[in-house]
Amino acid sequence: MIYTSQSIEKVIELFSSLPSIGRKTAQRLTFHLLRQPNELVENFSKALIELKKNVKYCSVCYNYTENDPCDICSSHKRDKSILCVVEEPNDVVVIEKTHDFFGLYHVLHGIMNPLEGITQDDIRIKELINRLNGIEEVILALNPTVEGELTTHYIAKLLKALDIKVTRIASGVPMGSSLEFTDEATISRALESRIAV
Amino acid sequence: MIYTSQSIEKVIELFSSLPSIGRKTAQRLTFHLLRQPNELVENFSKALIELKKNVKYCSVCYNYTENDPCDICSSHKRDKSILCVVEEPNDVVVIEKTHDFFGLYHVLHGIMNPLEGITQDDIRIKELINRLNGIEEVILALNPTVEGELTTHYIAKLLKALDIKVTRIASGVPMGSSLEFTDEATISRALESRIAV
Repeated sequence: MIYTSQSIEKVIELFSSLPSIGRKTAQRLTFHLLRQPNELVENFSKALIELKKNVKYCSVCYNYTENDPCDICSSHKRDKSILCVVEEPNDVVVIEKTHDFFGLYHVLHGIMNPLEGITQDDIRIKELINRLNGIEEVILALNPTVEGELTTHYIAKLLKALDIKVTRIASGVPMGSSLEFTDEATISRALESRIAV
Repeated sequence: MIYTSQSIEKVIELFSSLPSIGRKTAQRLTFHLLRQPNELVENFSKALIELKKNVKYCSVCYNYTENDPCDICSSHKRDKSILCVVEEPNDVVVIEKTHDFFGLYHVLHGIMNPLEGITQDDIRIKELINRLNGIEEVILALNPTVEGELTTHYIAKLLKALDIKVTRIASGVPMGSSLEFTDEATISRALESRIAV
């Protein structure tokens, strides 16, 4: 009889299922919410529903958006001749935070991983190839992991065959790490010193 | 234009408002939820509402519960002559996990803190005094902080005037720390070597 309520147990279990949240933190968060006004918890609950209801993929770049095409794809201020390819939507956030890139994005939603059976057909490479009209340069900004290197080389080969200039961000990002945990300055540097593949 | 969606921004903000969750973790959790099936996120949303709707205070011990009195207060297996007084509901969880205590609880919901203007009347001491019928021993299991010591001595004085045996858990719990972060073995030891005040 450790928890005296099924509802508490349930919320602790759900928090524990999130990445980087252990059982103890989950318990702390749950008891914290119990002490908050009803309104805050109702807001939280509603925000989760809205999140899944309102957020969809941009049909151009496949980033998360509420309007299709997304604000970046439809902005007049962005350079539509340059395309930055990333693995996941949060990589877009990381690059936007540098305020150093003004082109468009393309989100692959994954990375080629032969060991896990994820091939070029399982990520949005075909969609990338289909939107190259008017694009002068493609910057590959994938994580410098084994799988990222593999995917970078695969895409570079495809694009070069189509006579598109392909660059990749410099390895200012430490090898084996990921964009998500890199500071803005390092990512700015990596964008700046991108090299031809 | 760092986040391309208000709904994402909103959930990140709400996660950031929780204890021990920074902006970066909040962003990570939000993007994680976006990748989950609708059903899981709906469950999460519903669980938060149920949490606030179903969980109330036990009218006897003031622990969180869905049934009143709570499962501990109404259990036939618990020793109703011994009462363990704690600061917060999560302290009950910590003590239950030791499987070393079979009496009842009383949750004060706070601690006396003259600097912050929290007096004996702001926590559930009166309710403790009103439920001493049949109680042979009261164990004070408050955090060994300055405020915990103050409250321990205040309650001990009250109870001794009423001829109730009062004990406190031993300082196996490091001074200045809190029960929440103490391992079960240390708390077992502290319960076992409780001393008369």
